[in-house]
Amino acid sequence: MSDDKALTKRSEDFSAWYNEVVLRAELADYSPVRGSMVIRPYGYALWERMQRALDDMFKETGHQNAYFPLFIPLSFIAREAEHVEGFAKEMALVTHTRLIQNEKGELVVDPESKLEEPLVVRPTSETIIYDAFSKWVQSYRDLPLLINQWANVVRWEMRTRLFLRTAEFLWQEGHTAHASEAEAEEEARRMLGVYRDFQDNWLALGVVTGTKTPAEKFPGADRTYALEALMQDNRSLQSGTSHMLGQNFAKQFNLKFQSETGTEEYAWNTSWGVSTRLIGGMILTHGDDNGLVMPPRLAPIQVVIVPIFRKEEERALVLEKADHVAAHLRQNGVRVHIDARENMKPGSKYYEWERKGVPMRIEIGPKDVASQQLMLVMRQEIGDIPRKESVPEANALSIIARRLDDFQRALLEAAITRREKNSHRGITDYAKLRELVEADAGFIYAGWCGGADCEAKVKEDTKATIRCLPFEEFRSPEAPKQCVVCGKPAAHEAIWARAY
Amino acid sequence: MSDDKALTKRSEDFSAWYNEVVLRAELADYSPVRGSMVIRPYGYALWERMQRALDDMFKETGHQNAYFPLFIPLSFIAREAEHVEGFAKEMALVTHTRLIQNEKGELVVDPESKLEEPLVVRPTSETIIYDAFSKWVQSYRDLPLLINQWANVVRWEMRTRLFLRTAEFLWQEGHTAHASEAEAEEEARRMLGVYRDFQDNWLALGVVTGTKTPAEKFPGADRTYALEALMQDNRSLQSGTSHMLGQNFAKQFNLKFQSETGTEEYAWNTSWGVSTRLIGGMILTHGDDNGLVMPPRLAPIQVVIVPIFRKEEERALVLEKADHVAAHLRQNGVRVHIDARENMKPGSKYYEWERKGVPMRIEIGPKDVASQQLMLVMRQEIGDIPRKESVPEANALSIIARRLDDFQRALLEAAITRREKNSHRGITDYAKLRELVEADAGFIYAGWCGGADCEAKVKEDTKATIRCLPFEEFRSPEAPKQCVVCGKPAAHEAIWARAY
Repeated sequence: MSDDKALTKRSEDFSAWYNEVVLRAELADYSPVRGSMVIRPYGYALWERMQRALDDMFKETGHQNAYFPLFIPLSFIAREAEHVEGFAKEMALVTHTRLIQNEKGELVVDPESKLEEPLVVRPTSETIIYDAFSKWVQSYRDLPLLINQWANVVRWEMRTRLFLRTAEFLWQEGHTAHASEAEAEEEARRMLGVYRDFQDNWLALGVVTGTKTPAEKFPGADRTYALEALMQDNRSLQSGTSHMLGQNFAKQFNLKFQSETGTEEYAWNTSWGVSTRLIGGMILTHGDDNGLVMPPRLAPIQVVIVPIFRKEEERALVLEKADHVAAHLRQNGVRVHIDARENMKPGSKYYEWERKGVPMRIEIGPKDVASQQLMLVMRQEIGDIPRKESVPEANALSIIARRLDDFQRALLEAAITRREKNSHRGITDYAKLRELVEADAGFIYAGWCGGADCEAKVKEDTKATIRCLPFEEFRSPEAPKQCVVCGKPAAHEAIWARAY
Repeated sequence: MSDDKALTKRSEDFSAWYNEVVLRAELADYSPVRGSMVIRPYGYALWERMQRALDDMFKETGHQNAYFPLFIPLSFIAREAEHVEGFAKEMALVTHTRLIQNEKGELVVDPESKLEEPLVVRPTSETIIYDAFSKWVQSYRDLPLLINQWANVVRWEMRTRLFLRTAEFLWQEGHTAHASEAEAEEEARRMLGVYRDFQDNWLALGVVTGTKTPAEKFPGADRTYALEALMQDNRSLQSGTSHMLGQNFAKQFNLKFQSETGTEEYAWNTSWGVSTRLIGGMILTHGDDNGLVMPPRLAPIQVVIVPIFRKEEERALVLEKADHVAAHLRQNGVRVHIDARENMKPGSKYYEWERKGVPMRIEIGPKDVASQQLMLVMRQEIGDIPRKESVPEANALSIIARRLDDFQRALLEAAITRREKNSHRGITDYAKLRELVEADAGFIYAGWCGGADCEAKVKEDTKATIRCLPFEEFRSPEAPKQCVVCGKPAAHEAIWARAY
């Protein structure tokens, strides 16, 4: 069924536009369970491509996958809560294990099936994983232990958005144990680097990396490193975190090892994760008023071929050519789909595939067959790539491969250019900071004294938070001298923004 | 740390042997949550290989992956329960969504966070998936809809065994919708065929396929097809099922479509699943007193190289050769691991890799290096494959590839031979059936009148159930004439056995 209705424009209602893109590109759907979502085949194919790319990177850096239980005993969570201020309490709790029919014949929870100890549906798995590690690690020879898990997790969020914040979501969580603090620190930073590589070179987000402030870090961590990406509405999206956990969990879960010198030591841990939220980040970074724009390296479909014909005798000719071109491209690793649906106009197909963000379309009509040409149309005008060009079929493969590479690169360049255009550095005046934040102007770089009070004041006044204390390469050429809030000497340059 | 202690022998205590293999091959571990397990990296690597193989087969047959919510509203489950006798009631129930600290400072369930409608942690996803399908399907053009999901599911089992029966397990569940009964029937059988291909040609289980009796089928299905594999203790393992659901769920969840002729019709559904239970099946089929035996097509490590040296000057020589051989094998797609651990005797390494079921070991010592020979040792004496042979390094690749192929084939042949040796056909006497069942003699083939009473009587008398009514090719040459229980005319040949 063709569906040519235009999307709400971003400039009219950015939030409505986002929801429409998700639904009408058939990435996901609402579900009857509050805050949960259904990931539809097209969205899941994208997630599978992300998983494959990340999983390869994790394995190249020496990690192995494993799987830990969905349910965590309440007593484990309590141990974490004990030593952690700011511990989040909104979780799905399993309290019973049987249904019975009541006297009216209705299916209800059997009160007699009440668990002695309630179970928590994992919001993250540090506690249960480090408990397992404590059984597997005896000696320094068992370290480092480098584990990753692909899993679903649940956080009982009050306000949910498809992909960006849902009660249940899919993610990976890496958990590692090391013999020394230096090694764990190196690991936490290495995995942040892996994420940055993936998010820039596959998702084309153009992220900024840095350290979270104590108020914004994972409460169980010594330090949290994060990736922050600036979305088109100039809000920041935390697109991944890597935590140096120190010995906090090792001490709670008795994760000890015998060192080379024979002493007994607590291990040092890291954890790091990214989630289906990245799909939201991709949409908010690259999407336009026609819908989704997918970076070619991740796109489940890189090229869609639309055969065009009017008369029945043209049909076979054009479809045969489409098959031939598709087979040739597939042999060379290009992900191609032929849209041979009948009873649907080419224009409607164009709209649909543009909405679904396919990077390139090839139109093949009888004239193209006769002249041995292919009409290539890019999803979007970007960089110096021709939006539309007729190319000789004989050279098509190399041109298509180059255009897809160029498109991938151009998306990253555009994201970084937009981010920098919306980055405001050297802000020293508090009123100016407020004004910029309230105008949703983007990333505001300013000095910060390191005080929790100044940080809290900005949050209260403007809802903006310190997204991170950027790493060296993202910092302004000149270090800020004073805290933008209190005027005391600046301890750091900070990036302020409102966030998803 | 070396761990040379022998396993309990199968003949001494089969059940203890099984648990020891799982734990000491480091496939899985117990977890602090009753009935849940931790899948360790070696076990998960095996599951990943199973997933990849099955996923490729599903995609080749036109299926797409998607993801549906973990939580199902109780009202959905109630709709299934209403029309289904034999509905299972043991499920994990989420009733609350927040923790608070009580007056003693303990973390407890916040009574005020009670959900209006309890949520069920999915035991299987028919209800939530067909509800989603009902929104996606309008016309016959939207059919067939061929979806698969990789997910965790929870069934609150009372008696659990690692991999074989756990409260939470990993599986895939296929769910499809079709315009006609014939198409759905074809799909249900096609997917059973895909499972059989996988279970025989990858897992080497040597399965029997057939139809479940009404008492043993999935209660929501019109018909259930199943794969049954005979384990070494002569108990049957149901290793997969494919259900022809008819229009049962379509009617409950209003899954309708407009047909080609314009009428409104309910769709026809199928569902089919296999789980991490298959890992248990592999162990119980192929394992021996030295531990696991892995079929080479699935083994995460197909070949382990153990370098052997005494003097320091031999060390570099032998390790260099090991690296060289490994690189050559890897280039040719063989999954190789070099066990270069120090402070561990070669013999201890042999024990460990045998326990972990690696199909082939290559021993490389200084003499082998000098003579340009490699010592190949198969995991097990099987078929006519030499258990141990010294081969010229120059031919090693082709010999290794052939040995692995032969080993794969020999495992399947051995499984089928054992199954048939323990299949007792043409049983017409009820006392004989009881005697065979009580002696755990294997698969008992006998006539059945089709009556639920006769089926129930055998179950009560012996705990044996009808595993399936076998498909044509598994039936005895001569069809049974009478029911082995009541003596009335036989409607089917049935296979009886006790089961996992």
